[in-house]
Amino acid sequence: VCNCVALEARRVAIFGGTHGNEMSGVALVNLWIKNGADIQRRGADIKPFITNPRAVEKCVRYEHAHEFPYEVRRAQEINRMFGPKGSPEAYDVIFDLHNTTSNMGCTLILESSKDHFNLQMMNYIKVIPICLVLLNEHPLLKYSTSRSVAKHPVGLEVGPQPQGVLRSNIFEAMRVILKHALDFIELFNEGMEFPPCTVEVFRVSERIDYPRDANGNIIAMVHPNLQDCDWEPLNPGDPMFQTFDGKTIPYQGSCTVYPTFINEAAYYEKQQAFVTTRRETLAASGIRKA
Amino acid sequence: VCNCVALEARRVAIFGGTHGNEMSGVALVNLWIKNGADIQRRGADIKPFITNPRAVEKCVRYEHAHEFPYEVRRAQEINRMFGPKGSPEAYDVIFDLHNTTSNMGCTLILESSKDHFNLQMMNYIKVIPICLVLLNEHPLLKYSTSRSVAKHPVGLEVGPQPQGVLRSNIFEAMRVILKHALDFIELFNEGMEFPPCTVEVFRVSERIDYPRDANGNIIAMVHPNLQDCDWEPLNPGDPMFQTFDGKTIPYQGSCTVYPTFINEAAYYEKQQAFVTTRRETLAASGIRKA
Repeated sequence: VCNCVALEARRVAIFGGTHGNEMSGVALVNLWIKNGADIQRRGADIKPFITNPRAVEKCVRYEHAHEFPYEVRRAQEINRMFGPKGSPEAYDVIFDLHNTTSNMGCTLILESSKDHFNLQMMNYIKVIPICLVLLNEHPLLKYSTSRSVAKHPVGLEVGPQPQGVLRSNIFEAMRVILKHALDFIELFNEGMEFPPCTVEVFRVSERIDYPRDANGNIIAMVHPNLQDCDWEPLNPGDPMFQTFDGKTIPYQGSCTVYPTFINEAAYYEKQQAFVTTRRETLAASGIRKA
Repeated sequence: VCNCVALEARRVAIFGGTHGNEMSGVALVNLWIKNGADIQRRGADIKPFITNPRAVEKCVRYEHAHEFPYEVRRAQEINRMFGPKGSPEAYDVIFDLHNTTSNMGCTLILESSKDHFNLQMMNYIKVIPICLVLLNEHPLLKYSTSRSVAKHPVGLEVGPQPQGVLRSNIFEAMRVILKHALDFIELFNEGMEFPPCTVEVFRVSERIDYPRDANGNIIAMVHPNLQDCDWEPLNPGDPMFQTFDGKTIPYQGSCTVYPTFINEAAYYEKQQAFVTTRRETLAASGIRKA
């Protein structure tokens, strides 16, 4: 008998359309609502769900500010349906499907370095070597994503795909990742024990804004040497931005970082050109079903 | 003395922000409004101009439907400032800078196969071999673009670039094309004669929609073999779409076409997955300044 953390993973949801113009997640969830054969797994009840149908309808990220109460209401509904957050009745796992305009490839996003179930799932999914794990562990973030009403929230961010566009390669990559994630849940529910393991993650470190003038207007672009180079090392002194009149602005940090979400469309308004991350290896305990 | 068509090209405008989320044109025009050294040319008066500042402000393609009168008003203002259309006072040349999410590279768009000045300009710009010419000759289209108030309207469409994103490579490509176009105008205004020539264009032929169900919902994506293959030959029987459940839909046309605007984000609502074009060689008369 292993020294395992015992859990369960019976109720699972797949969210699409949290951002209404991120089309692969929307298309997959709509497909699975019509025909769930692809996502059925023994021992689990798996619910595909469009989180923000109004934003999907308009093909925009969010509803507009003057309708903000809709999104607050919707978040409350989601908390009632899939939570309540922190309660025993909350869903076990929620996958939240996102797309990005940056060249991130397939990225799984975790909110906690201590969620051994999720770390084991990451370890399992990484039998296919196309996935990286971004760790965005922040006490406030937990309350900002709708998936965080679940016991084990997992973001899936795949790119590059422009907003409002559906690319077959991105759609297919997301489908494959979900297949492996759900296979893990099935094996777990059938009683398979997962022994202790380690998982390499990229922990969010800093948010870097575009250079701006006194009025807040952007005066430089992501440097061509950095554009599309998500997850590649950025060293102090490496080119980071290029001003509109052709000057290079180097990275001024004190050590090597791994940038990601480089030039994501939705983050201009958040004043974020990219985020830096640090590589870290996390230990996951063994797990088995309760 | 050559058998030339005599014209003039004294008043020139460069439009950015006709679509507010097409960022390269917006950034270039804003840069040139602050500092026009780059675009000054002997013999010509060159005016950079943001056509839809409200859409630029919000980083959206258009203002929303309920504010449509703003865009009608703006079109009237543009007609007063740069036209009136069809009058002798109208601007000689308007360049209208656009970006696309499709992999079109650098594309110059003409509205008339009989505009010898523009055809000569295309021939000149193509000394750099990165530009293709799309001919969208349609009696109604002439009244639908704001640039068409000019005697010689030229669209410049460069991609791939997601909406709301500024990529340094796309920005730079547009800057280089504009430089060559303005050099042509300077040479012309200095009296250089341009002898008759021929120009290869891609003439818009058909608009192809995504496959849809009875409710109008898209049921297939651009096929991976077609995605990003703008300007490459599409033959009858070649894969065109892939349904969400994995079936291939082939192209059913009767002859080889050259697709472009493949999977452009803004054209989903126009029910357009791509346009087909046919290659054609146009003859341009010689030209010199009046």
